[in-house]
Amino acid sequence: MEFFDIAETWSREAITAAQIVRLRNTVEQAMKSPFYGQRLKEAGVTPGSIRSLDDVRRIPLTSKDDLRAQYPDGLICVPKSELVRMHASSGTTGTPTVVYHTQSDLNSWADLMARCMHMVGIRREDVFQNMAGYGLFTGGLGIHYGAERLGCLTIPAGAGNTRRQVKLVRDFRTTVAHIIPSYALYLGAALRDEGEDPAELPLRIALIGAEPHTEEARRRIEDMLGLKAYNSYGLSEMNGPGVAFECVHQDGLHVWEDAYIAEIIDPATGEAVPDGEVGELVMTTLCRQGMPVLRYRTRDLTRFLPGECACGRVHRRLDRILGRADDMLIVKGVNIYPMQVEQVLMGFPEVGQNYLIVLERDDFRDVLRVKVEIRDEYFEEDMRKLHGLRERITRRIHDEILVTPKVDLVQHNSLPKSEGKAQRVQDLRERPAL
Amino acid sequence: MEFFDIAETWSREAITAAQIVRLRNTVEQAMKSPFYGQRLKEAGVTPGSIRSLDDVRRIPLTSKDDLRAQYPDGLICVPKSELVRMHASSGTTGTPTVVYHTQSDLNSWADLMARCMHMVGIRREDVFQNMAGYGLFTGGLGIHYGAERLGCLTIPAGAGNTRRQVKLVRDFRTTVAHIIPSYALYLGAALRDEGEDPAELPLRIALIGAEPHTEEARRRIEDMLGLKAYNSYGLSEMNGPGVAFECVHQDGLHVWEDAYIAEIIDPATGEAVPDGEVGELVMTTLCRQGMPVLRYRTRDLTRFLPGECACGRVHRRLDRILGRADDMLIVKGVNIYPMQVEQVLMGFPEVGQNYLIVLERDDFRDVLRVKVEIRDEYFEEDMRKLHGLRERITRRIHDEILVTPKVDLVQHNSLPKSEGKAQRVQDLRERPAL
Repeated sequence: MEFFDIAETWSREAITAAQIVRLRNTVEQAMKSPFYGQRLKEAGVTPGSIRSLDDVRRIPLTSKDDLRAQYPDGLICVPKSELVRMHASSGTTGTPTVVYHTQSDLNSWADLMARCMHMVGIRREDVFQNMAGYGLFTGGLGIHYGAERLGCLTIPAGAGNTRRQVKLVRDFRTTVAHIIPSYALYLGAALRDEGEDPAELPLRIALIGAEPHTEEARRRIEDMLGLKAYNSYGLSEMNGPGVAFECVHQDGLHVWEDAYIAEIIDPATGEAVPDGEVGELVMTTLCRQGMPVLRYRTRDLTRFLPGECACGRVHRRLDRILGRADDMLIVKGVNIYPMQVEQVLMGFPEVGQNYLIVLERDDFRDVLRVKVEIRDEYFEEDMRKLHGLRERITRRIHDEILVTPKVDLVQHNSLPKSEGKAQRVQDLRERPAL
Repeated sequence: MEFFDIAETWSREAITAAQIVRLRNTVEQAMKSPFYGQRLKEAGVTPGSIRSLDDVRRIPLTSKDDLRAQYPDGLICVPKSELVRMHASSGTTGTPTVVYHTQSDLNSWADLMARCMHMVGIRREDVFQNMAGYGLFTGGLGIHYGAERLGCLTIPAGAGNTRRQVKLVRDFRTTVAHIIPSYALYLGAALRDEGEDPAELPLRIALIGAEPHTEEARRRIEDMLGLKAYNSYGLSEMNGPGVAFECVHQDGLHVWEDAYIAEIIDPATGEAVPDGEVGELVMTTLCRQGMPVLRYRTRDLTRFLPGECACGRVHRRLDRILGRADDMLIVKGVNIYPMQVEQVLMGFPEVGQNYLIVLERDDFRDVLRVKVEIRDEYFEEDMRKLHGLRERITRRIHDEILVTPKVDLVQHNSLPKSEGKAQRVQDLRERPAL
């Protein structure tokens, strides 16, 4: 295996051993902030009390609201003169969350990002065009520093200005682009509209992240632009990009467990879910000095993929982000995410664009009803075939969520349409699920 | 003298000695590009033929058109895999000019920028908010890397969004801002309109550059925002910011002669102007590997300020940029810049906002006529006073440009007004001046 960082070659035992030592150091560092000082004291957690990786669960969870309450500087763990960078969420919904970095933090971050890029075959001979916005948004400077660390010729193009982006790609023979998925689709369509063949551009790799997107969107980006698109995962509270990244096998995102501890919890109870089940991703920094964050609830839903990756790295793989924890429904005591139902439905060619999940209560019992629009050509078929289809959908949904739904097949265009974000769930039960 | 880089303490002899050695190395490096290889060969310049600093004049001048003709990569002097950054001019007028950097180039650039900031008292304890745009524009990343090198807590705010800029300044106790002069004036006015006292903000220093501006504009920025504003000079062909910078005495911009050779030439003849006279600034990189540029015609007009600086640095000081070489007029064989006339006029309280320079030809001789609007309250005064004023203006202009003008005092609002950039010169002579 060609690797950028020796940590990529570590065994599970080596990773675990490093995680325990680094978690101990991180707890010691975090205690220097008043917030974690008090939290950890109340929980009875000291560096010395961390003896196994399971001890991470003794540390209380940290929420986005916790970070907001510490705005602007309640989580700093070094003398302020040691800080060299500040990033902040856009703060579109209230107080922004702020993250501070020391020079050592920036170096670690650049190393992690360079490792991601190296993993998918990017080398110093590549020309890298950063089509993400710079500034407080971590996607710009975060990937920029990684590319520079790797030694790529970096073109800090910034976001937008499609005509100039294409001119830069063409004139400077750009081989790798960092691009937001929706912009990649727009760029591909714009090129085709102008009669250009994007496959003739020198681009060979796109790093796509920052927005949730489907596997179908990725394949369309790859086809339209004639390149390989790799999924990037990060969030500003964990630095930004460079947290988890796909390898060349495009089968899940390796999370860099030498630098983070990743857990999947049940968002309702806060307890670990059984291995491989969907839940909320919780992350702990292991290499950050300026502002360590312990057991941060990302609100992002995913699961650990089972088995070993063909690339040989044992760093566990996260599934692509399946939605937000805030979307979770509890039905008959089981956690269900609308995205799980959607994924099942999209596997049936008979199913149209629209569906609706309706939660009802029947004699104190929860009923999960799924109304599914069927394409006109299938709706014409005889009743037995439709019954068969309904049964197959029912079974497949049950297999995915372990609850048996009532499935209604309805005609195309019969479900309410919505402008913008689709309304996929109606909860008609008396009490809210959470 | 507190210094960031030992080169700040060098004597004139030490600077000259370093310049000769570095020029020799730069010539050797530049010859690796086809463009300079041929240019230098034609001029008979080899590294070994550089024996004194005067030998720089044997090197041909490089124009912006030369750089454009080499677009996109004709000036690269290292294997492409050693390049890590590309910047480009916005290219609003035709082909952009492109500059490439190796990691060593980026390090030197960051060091120079950090030196500028340190010189005006910025330290690692400062909080630095970069209000300039990032991306291909060098003002963003250029100053960002300098601030990081100095160890300031750097807030990559980017341009615009006044409400957020002010919130960041207030919440993160920003002490130093990089801000474009026109935006600084806008920000000051916006704060006053909202009933805020900008003097209560923690800001103590502003770095202003990227736009030509007057001393009056600087003083207004300082008064409005309650801080010290320091003038920054740079251009992307010479990296970007970090070429020349004011010290705390605000009396000219020290040009970093250990990293550049600066010359002032007559833009018409290309010859050196006598010391202290206004002309076009010509710059040579001394520390750049990826893409050295020799004797670059900046088109910027300035002069070396005479005498020693109170700060003790012997690095020569440039006057603030007085205009563009393209604005030069030749009158009676003498080079004249409209800005010189304007500076004289602005020294008279009787003079209003508008003036016009008219070039006429009278019996094959050039006539320089200056029409000057006089404020209403002075125009009412008796004729003898107006005659006296006209004579004083005539004499002062002659002292500045060594040509005796014909001065017409005219009434307020009698000269043509222009939307946007004022039309200050009318050339009524048969042939163009250049």
